[in-house]
Amino acid sequence: MRRLYHIWLDPGCRIARVVLAEKRVDFELKVEMPWQRRDKFLQMNPAGDVPLLIEKDGAILSNTRAVVEFLEEQYPEPPLLGQTPHERAEIRRLMGWFDGKFMTEVAHHLMSEKIMKRFLKMGQPSSDAIRAALYNMRTHLDYLDYLTERHNYLAGDRFSMADIFAASYFSVLDYLGDVDWDGHDAAREWYIRVKSRLSFKPLLEERISGLTPPRHYSQLDF
Amino acid sequence: MRRLYHIWLDPGCRIARVVLAEKRVDFELKVEMPWQRRDKFLQMNPAGDVPLLIEKDGAILSNTRAVVEFLEEQYPEPPLLGQTPHERAEIRRLMGWFDGKFMTEVAHHLMSEKIMKRFLKMGQPSSDAIRAALYNMRTHLDYLDYLTERHNYLAGDRFSMADIFAASYFSVLDYLGDVDWDGHDAAREWYIRVKSRLSFKPLLEERISGLTPPRHYSQLDF
Repeated sequence: MRRLYHIWLDPGCRIARVVLAEKRVDFELKVEMPWQRRDKFLQMNPAGDVPLLIEKDGAILSNTRAVVEFLEEQYPEPPLLGQTPHERAEIRRLMGWFDGKFMTEVAHHLMSEKIMKRFLKMGQPSSDAIRAALYNMRTHLDYLDYLTERHNYLAGDRFSMADIFAASYFSVLDYLGDVDWDGHDAAREWYIRVKSRLSFKPLLEERISGLTPPRHYSQLDF
Repeated sequence: MRRLYHIWLDPGCRIARVVLAEKRVDFELKVEMPWQRRDKFLQMNPAGDVPLLIEKDGAILSNTRAVVEFLEEQYPEPPLLGQTPHERAEIRRLMGWFDGKFMTEVAHHLMSEKIMKRFLKMGQPSSDAIRAALYNMRTHLDYLDYLTERHNYLAGDRFSMADIFAASYFSVLDYLGDVDWDGHDAAREWYIRVKSRLSFKPLLEERISGLTPPRHYSQLDF
């Protein structure tokens, strides 16, 4: 059986899960806590991070963007990366936007302060870092508005990897109660469209014991 | 004419330049200092970062990984991303290793402390950050050794994007005099192989006024 090593509330793992679900590819989930740096896991992935996918043929795939590009090549239906080099470039630009810029400016801080430090008690959370991340998030929500006022989805009128990346990141921060959707109607409508997909259902139903999301988290109309 | 906006000593810009040169695609270079946040530039790339490529048809491409994937699709010769989905997954994993892990653990600190703060006088350099980055770099050099003891190039016996990513990152840190190649013979031999390529020549000849690289920087046998 195909196996995906993942950890809860990790955007990259959520991305891999949604892509697998969109492509209707069966897999079993296995929790890996990367901070334990298990020897056997490091042998499979010296980077030590999740998601890590083991294919039925034994191939070991890691690095979120490498995993989803592989899935797109192996399981082309439905296409999630556009049809032309120009479309793919736009989708990949947005994948990079969330995986890079949004991660660095927003998600990394909130996940590190609220999940790693506060919830897993691995250090003293910094309210400055949280404040800076929340401040930075507004610019990103404005950019989401800009994109979704023009098209139904981030890279155009078709659902794509760009939406999966963005919504996976936002879903983690939304679980933490950190996304203020007020005043971002276009972005909110887009997020409702994405979270209504069957592929997102397992994520929205998942709960971490001791860490409760706000009530609107799994509501499809919020 | 195709135009690449770049800044000196930036790994992503070096990656784009080498890929264009490997594929013998003509382009003109234009310097963009992303910290100036020029309005006209932000209109082309709201992320505000370089490299940014303007194609002859006017298409605007940004985000390093999106740019090089686009170039691979538009100009398939010579192939730099392998032949099979599994080969591409390994090459992309290593692209992500350098663009992600190596950037975060090593390159970001050295570039930010030594280039942005010390050289461009945008703040007080932190010797702790520099020390941590140099310490982290050893693990990465060990991993380069591990890979290059087994194959001529990082993802196998063929030169690929993985080598371009790794060597572009290392070339920037080598310019800063921060790479201690001693005891890393396999990695050093690999770097000699890569820096001997014609596509690397313009990078090795480039000098920043007031910032002199160590003597071995542009030597092909060091």
